[in-house]
Amino acid sequence: MTAPSAIEYDAASPEVKKVYDDMRAIRKTDHINNIWKFLANDPKLLRRTWESVKEVMAPDGAIDPLTKEMLYLAISVSNSCGYCIATHSAAAESKGMTPDMFGELMAIVGMANETNRLVSGYRVPIDAIYD
Amino acid sequence: MTAPSAIEYDAASPEVKKVYDDMRAIRKTDHINNIWKFLANDPKLLRRTWESVKEVMAPDGAIDPLTKEMLYLAISVSNSCGYCIATHSAAAESKGMTPDMFGELMAIVGMANETNRLVSGYRVPIDAIYD
Amino acid sequence: MTAPSAIEYDAASPEVKKVYDDMRAIRKTDHINNIWKFLANDPKLLRRTWESVKEVMAPDGAIDPLTKEMLYLAISVSNSCGYCIATHSAAAESKGMTPDMFGELMAIVGMANETNRLVSGYRVPIDAIYD
Amino acid sequence: MTAPSAIEYDAASPEVKKVYDDMRAIRKTDHINNIWKFLANDPKLLRRTWESVKEVMAPDGAIDPLTKEMLYLAISVSNSCGYCIATHSAAAESKGMTPDMFGELMAIVGMANETNRLVSGYRVPIDAIYD
Amino acid sequence: MTAPSAIEYDAASPEVKKVYDDMRAIRKTDHINNIWKFLANDPKLLRRTWESVKEVMAPDGAIDPLTKEMLYLAISVSNSCGYCIATHSAAAESKGMTPDMFGELMAIVGMANETNRLVSGYRVPIDAIYD
Amino acid sequence: MTAPSAIEYDAASPEVKKVYDDMRAIRKTDHINNIWKFLANDPKLLRRTWESVKEVMAPDGAIDPLTKEMLYLAISVSNSCGYCIATHSAAAESKGMTPDMFGELMAIVGMANETNRLVSGYRVPIDAIYD
Repeated sequence: MTAPSAIEYDAASPEVKKVYDDMRAIRKTDHINNIWKFLANDPKLLRRTWESVKEVMAPDGAIDPLTKEMLYLAISVSNSCGYCIATHSAAAESKGMTPDMFGELMAIVGMANETNRLVSGYRVPIDAIYD
Repeated sequence: MTAPSAIEYDAASPEVKKVYDDMRAIRKTDHINNIWKFLANDPKLLRRTWESVKEVMAPDGAIDPLTKEMLYLAISVSNSCGYCIATHSAAAESKGMTPDMFGELMAIVGMANETNRLVSGYRVPIDAIYD
Repeated sequence: MTAPSAIEYDAASPEVKKVYDDMRAIRKTDHINNIWKFLANDPKLLRRTWESVKEVMAPDGAIDPLTKEMLYLAISVSNSCGYCIATHSAAAESKGMTPDMFGELMAIVGMANETNRLVSGYRVPIDAIYD
Repeated sequence: MTAPSAIEYDAASPEVKKVYDDMRAIRKTDHINNIWKFLANDPKLLRRTWESVKEVMAPDGAIDPLTKEMLYLAISVSNSCGYCIATHSAAAESKGMTPDMFGELMAIVGMANETNRLVSGYRVPIDAIYD
Repeated sequence: MTAPSAIEYDAASPEVKKVYDDMRAIRKTDHINNIWKFLANDPKLLRRTWESVKEVMAPDGAIDPLTKEMLYLAISVSNSCGYCIATHSAAAESKGMTPDMFGELMAIVGMANETNRLVSGYRVPIDAIYD
Repeated sequence: MTAPSAIEYDAASPEVKKVYDDMRAIRKTDHINNIWKFLANDPKLLRRTWESVKEVMAPDGAIDPLTKEMLYLAISVSNSCGYCIATHSAAAESKGMTPDMFGELMAIVGMANETNRLVSGYRVPIDAIYD
């Protein structure tokens, strides 16, 4: 397969343009991230993913927007997704993540990945008080 | 190998007891989680892991203790570590995580795991503005 | 270690050439993918891996060749293996995968990675009817 | 946190019942899988996940329903999600997966996980013809 | 699908019995591990996997048998495969792994999982001298 | 977030310089790997990670230094960490890993990733003798 390519706004179908327009309005920027331009190769996947992300990351939830971005970033680091690390680092920074907070987030991601394996290898059973 | 077993306080060496005592003082509870009782099979690993966790999860950092626990929990869910999910859910709850917050955390962990793969499969290049 | 390098046909040992010849005959193309040229650094690993792939992907199995390639591609996407995504996308396309099918495959890979984590985090027990 | 528990139909809110009813109609069975009863702890997560799964796994797509189930199962095996393996094995079997097909699926999941790592370790660059 | 079940020696086909016999001769024990009894549901998968494991773990290689078992165990811990941890711990122990060695192995598995993520999150480029 | 950048020796704080100096003394080389220059953005993370790596990889343990490096490399390959593969391949080679040993290590990493999934998909229970 030729590698998928980005669908730019001007070349997009009305169905895709509608998603791009909503994104621009919600995010208050004309820039559309590459992920959306590639998902646009499958308009249903684009729409569904955007609707889900919009709902999950909505600012009126029980978790504040900065913490939400940091959780998204932490998973992306744990999965070694370079693209996701770049974009969610930027998003978290724009919502207030400082370099010190990033360092602590990284320390937790690293430590959790370490202790998750220690638990497996030592076959640690769940304490009765947590079960 | 026979499966490793827990080292209880009374059977522990002075080196291990010292870690257990510090844990009880810091955590203000007599209960010692199973993970530590199993790591105690290797006193150096026990001490080093405890010192690191204590420093990483310290309450005086740039990230507040509840958010730290939620980050730890999110990674543990992403890695499907049953033991870690049980203990860090309890810890996060004790620091203020509500069921609504847990639901939103889960939604982010799920969504990030989904979009991390969409990015790989569509081979999405990093936008120039993030590089 | 200097990074491993490709073993081209002309520089290959008779043992490696024999595998390359078999590949060319089976795949009906002179092109040998880079993965094989790198595995050729260990001729036994090359031979064993090729014999296994040939048997697993054989066209006379219970699963048709296109579906086999799509399964291989799906795992490669889930594991974020860039090389594997490029080569197995091409192979699947050559066997009939359309862009619409690729989009649906991606949607399933994403969704499975999401729900696999939801199950872990909510600690969902197996329904009695499936056990 | 006490472990989450299942929300049974009779104890469910109208919002949750609506999803359960849709599920029963679409799936033509009264049985509701445990995953949904646990996600019901967060009605928005339940609804969004169900709507997405319903759309992704719809029978009128470019990929046939059996292949879709096998792709879902393959990812679940690769991620070692016991619950997901049990439920998607059953679903694939009900759509026509035979034991021979399951064996071949497993062989591909295993082989892909193997070769994905061989590619990483040998640092194999993408062939120019696939880039 | 009903969960797969073990194929015991007496109920096995001649093709499967041949593999079991080879195993017993090579491993010098009548016990056949459950993994083989389950793979026997697909005799080709059983034979191919056994032949590969036998070749990979052969005692006459460049890496000694104990180190080979410890590498296998380390990956199994990193992947949190409970069955594999139990069997490869036993195999490594039978070849000379002491509890101290197991503790150090665990420390390395944990540390590598931690630093692998630190590298991703900090987007560390490869030093020119290693490229 | 602008991508993190390397902290060179001359621009480093006294706290960071102290770690760099210790590294140079222990490793008997002036070269400081990029990972440390990036972790130096968070001096506490740098110091803690270095102290842990130094202790875990110490030459006087129960496992010899070459085997330790090969275990670290195996996990890095399994996690597809390109940077880690490059640096730990070089470190293992400098301690005596030959190309034949690398090939066998790779074969084990691949095989373990394969059989770990076979075990999950076939839902293999632990043999009573290992439990």
